[in-house]
Amino acid sequence: MVSESLGIIEPQFFKFEGDFELESGKILEGFNIIYETYGNLNEKKSNAILICHALSGNHHAAGYSNEEKNKAGWWNELIGPGKAFDTNKFFIVSLNNLGGCHGSTGPSSVNPKTSKIFGKSFPLVTVKDWVKSQNLLRKHLGIDSWHAVSGGSLGGMQALQWAIDFDKHIKKSIVIAAAPKLSAQNIAFNEVARQAIVTDPDFDQGSFHPKRGLGLARMLGHITYLSEEMMKEKFGRDLKKEKYEYGFDVEFEVESYLRYQADTFSDKFNAYTYLLMTKALDYFDPARGFENDLNKALDRTTTDFLILSFSSDWRFAPERSKEIVNALISSKKSVSYAEIKKHAGA
Amino acid sequence: MVSESLGIIEPQFFKFEGDFELESGKILEGFNIIYETYGNLNEKKSNAILICHALSGNHHAAGYSNEEKNKAGWWNELIGPGKAFDTNKFFIVSLNNLGGCHGSTGPSSVNPKTSKIFGKSFPLVTVKDWVKSQNLLRKHLGIDSWHAVSGGSLGGMQALQWAIDFDKHIKKSIVIAAAPKLSAQNIAFNEVARQAIVTDPDFDQGSFHPKRGLGLARMLGHITYLSEEMMKEKFGRDLKKEKYEYGFDVEFEVESYLRYQADTFSDKFNAYTYLLMTKALDYFDPARGFENDLNKALDRTTTDFLILSFSSDWRFAPERSKEIVNALISSKKSVSYAEIKKHAGA
Repeated sequence: MVSESLGIIEPQFFKFEGDFELESGKILEGFNIIYETYGNLNEKKSNAILICHALSGNHHAAGYSNEEKNKAGWWNELIGPGKAFDTNKFFIVSLNNLGGCHGSTGPSSVNPKTSKIFGKSFPLVTVKDWVKSQNLLRKHLGIDSWHAVSGGSLGGMQALQWAIDFDKHIKKSIVIAAAPKLSAQNIAFNEVARQAIVTDPDFDQGSFHPKRGLGLARMLGHITYLSEEMMKEKFGRDLKKEKYEYGFDVEFEVESYLRYQADTFSDKFNAYTYLLMTKALDYFDPARGFENDLNKALDRTTTDFLILSFSSDWRFAPERSKEIVNALISSKKSVSYAEIKKHAGA
Repeated sequence: MVSESLGIIEPQFFKFEGDFELESGKILEGFNIIYETYGNLNEKKSNAILICHALSGNHHAAGYSNEEKNKAGWWNELIGPGKAFDTNKFFIVSLNNLGGCHGSTGPSSVNPKTSKIFGKSFPLVTVKDWVKSQNLLRKHLGIDSWHAVSGGSLGGMQALQWAIDFDKHIKKSIVIAAAPKLSAQNIAFNEVARQAIVTDPDFDQGSFHPKRGLGLARMLGHITYLSEEMMKEKFGRDLKKEKYEYGFDVEFEVESYLRYQADTFSDKFNAYTYLLMTKALDYFDPARGFENDLNKALDRTTTDFLILSFSSDWRFAPERSKEIVNALISSKKSVSYAEIKKHAGA
């Protein structure tokens, strides 16, 4: 059965004009959030699902856009008529987070105070800040409670934070391939990506297009997103040419792939957004406000949880998801868990 | 029991004056190899053990040097009187490989043909080339057969290649934390390190001191050498200060550690040597000359093997060592295998 396409999706804007206090104590004097919706909101406004994006994601999760008529949104396989997030039944909302570079207020936006591009002066934002801004979007849409909030990786962390901060406004939390906080190794990878960007001389000069550094960050990211098995299946030790060349041009297919990823990504993504997103990952630690006890953090939530992990995910391995599951079980919450065999993808 | 120290070790030099043909087909017109020895060669010259270094290693494996009187060699815990490689019984030889930057002929040496520093013109060398040069060192030392050849990671690959290429001159091969060839993921990490170096503008300008790029490569290397558990134990999510700073200065201890590693390493290591060493890792694939069949590659060897792996090693995990063990068993060779629990270290 070929699924019906959602066709071209027009993005919408939510303009918030009040002062928005961030977890850091800094104030954003209003902001814009770009978002898309798929499917229709029912009369009771009870069928809305919020999709949260990961590190390099954006609001364009499904269907096609006027800019990219041939390239579907990043979760198009999951969102649409008859799909997992069935647009025949649900009203799906997907946004670009604050600090992003796809239309929401971020480093590439004009600071209304100075009439200049924010750039490096854009404040750091956290998962908690995002969830708070998403809650304002919820109100704006006239939705009392999300049927569900879902996302993978950094998106899954938002789904988890929703259940902690606004459990009256979320019925189900679907947390995919996430962790309750980053490990030292996770932080270490983020730090290498950041150092690649901030040590690029083009970044020092404030050009905001440190193409080399951003490319390196993307290459490194790709290694952590792809499972070892998937890399093995996709590339193995396949050579571009027939034999070893004994030089520094591309020899193995995997090198070619990484260089291509670096090149295309670094042309279009904002380096400062990349820095912000990695910091949001590092800072995420919902137990921190609850004596470092995740059970306590989850204690008051009434949300139902679905926790999903991938057996081949080595960055946020199933063990990390199980930490969340175990805390939920200890707190006597409603939780379902599934470990998906086979490789993880992004 | 406190082990006796080997004291200050004076390095020695082996000068080879003939043409040395590399696997790439290129010719090195002679070379120097710097090496150290620990313990005494017996009359029968039957107690010599060769130690091979890994990516960023050198000849100074044990004792102290005149340059660094307070810092012991990189395997000092294992080499010395009464230690695993017991210098009361064995004559240990440790060298800096061709292409290195610690005294053996490499990119920072003068090319006798041009009287200029080799730099980028230094040819790529392989594990097979190293073993061939080490065999010339063996002859120079008047040793008919090594009692053993040993090393970890890239050093272990040399110990394996020795058994394939010169099995008449090696009795035991001790292969630690290695793999019979790199996976796509292993190559991918090396490629990011190389790209960090070659995209550093200082490298383009031929300064050979692309400090930023080399520092990034080192940071990334450290993440792959340290086990996730060790990073967790050593750093966890410990902060440098008491609370989140919401900025890009060092916040987590692990960031501080990585930046320090990058800084100290990139001051002293040669970037082109780093590139060469990563390529030698990528190229290593002893089965390649034997119809991609490791069993066939190992078929003719008469060497005894000890294969060691670390349970927490995620770069060259125990599964990779077992590939070697299984090929040896299939070929009915003498092999012992041990998986060492607890963390891997470098």
